Amino acid sequence: MNPDERTVLGRAFDLLGAFTAERPVLGLSELARRTGLPTPTVHRLCAQMCTRGALERTEDGRYRIGVRLWELGALAPRAHGLRQVALPFLEDLYEATHQNVQLVVLEGTEALYVERISGHHAVPLLSRAGGRLPLHASSGGLVLLAHAGPELLLAVLEGGLERFTENTITSEHRLRSTLADVRRTGTVTCRQHLDPRSVAVAAPVLAGGAVLAAVSVVVSTSDDPGPLLPALRAACRGISRGLTAAAR
Amino acid sequence: MNPDERTVLGRAFDLLGAFTAERPVLGLSELARRTGLPTPTVHRLCAQMCTRGALERTEDGRYRIGVRLWELGALAPRAHGLRQVALPFLEDLYEATHQNVQLVVLEGTEALYVERISGHHAVPLLSRAGGRLPLHASSGGLVLLAHAGPELLLAVLEGGLERFTENTITSEHRLRSTLADVRRTGTVTCRQHLDPRSVAVAAPVLAGGAVLAAVSVVVSTSDDPGPLLPALRAACRGISRGLTAAAR
Repeated sequence: MNPDERTVLGRAFDLLGAFTAERPVLGLSELARRTGLPTPTVHRLCAQMCTRGALERTEDGRYRIGVRLWELGALAPRAHGLRQVALPFLEDLYEATHQNVQLVVLEGTEALYVERISGHHAVPLLSRAGGRLPLHASSGGLVLLAHAGPELLLAVLEGGLERFTENTITSEHRLRSTLADVRRTGTVTCRQHLDPRSVAVAAPVLAGGAVLAAVSVVVSTSDDPGPLLPALRAACRGISRGLTAAAR
Repeated sequence: MNPDERTVLGRAFDLLGAFTAERPVLGLSELARRTGLPTPTVHRLCAQMCTRGALERTEDGRYRIGVRLWELGALAPRAHGLRQVALPFLEDLYEATHQNVQLVVLEGTEALYVERISGHHAVPLLSRAGGRLPLHASSGGLVLLAHAGPELLLAVLEGGLERFTENTITSEHRLRSTLADVRRTGTVTCRQHLDPRSVAVAAPVLAGGAVLAAVSVVVSTSDDPGPLLPALRAACRGISRGLTAAAR
């Protein structure tokens, strides 16, 4: 066993993790600064990752995440596999609403988008680094949290319930009672919890008796999301059936 | 410099590369067999990649590509970034056709899907490992090949023009004249080149004067794809404009 192995892989993932949606292209010195690694090490590891297609050089000599890494990531069953099954149902929901339709899964203590369909004229969404949303302040996040174990709720409470708007859930009491409502009714409606411009509704996607994901629709505060709920529930049931069929 | 660094990263990418769309979940012994690595090495590297979220354990103790790797891959500008700009235009095209709409980029000597929207009732597509298509036999691939350098054409010819149907382009003469037509007309129509059940049309997406991607629409052989060409061209122009705006 080579004692440096963990360090090498750790360094490589630190380099990959330096890229963000806001900074998708980084030069050598920026990578060295963001990772705390010496420039020669960054240069050597980046060259190796370019050979494997994990990174690509841009015309000006900087680096970006490579198409090959995207292709590998597309094999993640809990992200891309789910998305493939869900997409036709999300399309139907999009055609019915022409608003923002989102599919999220749990990743750590956050909700991670695996799909987001937005029309040209849909209400703008708050764009967040890395495509993640806080569990307590997003409709999809509340659905995931409502059906997760008590450890996750404790971790979220320990992390603090950050306030985004006047309507964000910031008390443990209100969070617990909202989660109980979500479990009872099967859906959640969040009016201006994360963004004062929007209202979101969400429902769970089940697979094998467990909640694997949530689908949400985000509309403008001037729209009534109530009439969307039957279509949202139907889409989630369709995805659940598709996942059960795909698992066979 | 640690002489084993390249080996460690190489091994890690060999392990990741063992996963395919057909086999998205693999056990230790399968991974060892597919990579030729000793089982203890596979176990150790997989454990490290699980810590970083690149891999995930399934309930039965096997491995799958992790959501975190998908998230990193989603930062690839030439795949996910392009897709984000393109998606509303692909949606429009999908709504107009309710058939298969595809966005492809060049990766090595193949065309790689970065998006594929399929309706419930669209003509079924040939599903190929890894989401790749041969350049000479797919409409999107011919568009990419027509606008690439002469080295790529030589590499494709050296690789051999595999026959998929009676209509596949398998001679260098026909390939060269088709590519010249694509450059002259701006679009290509492939009737039963890859699959006897379908006809495909494709057009290029330009950015900064270069062809960055191609969009194709695949319909049944009983449909006339001609009327789709104006909508296809409009979608490609819209994506090109979006990319130019995003680059500013």
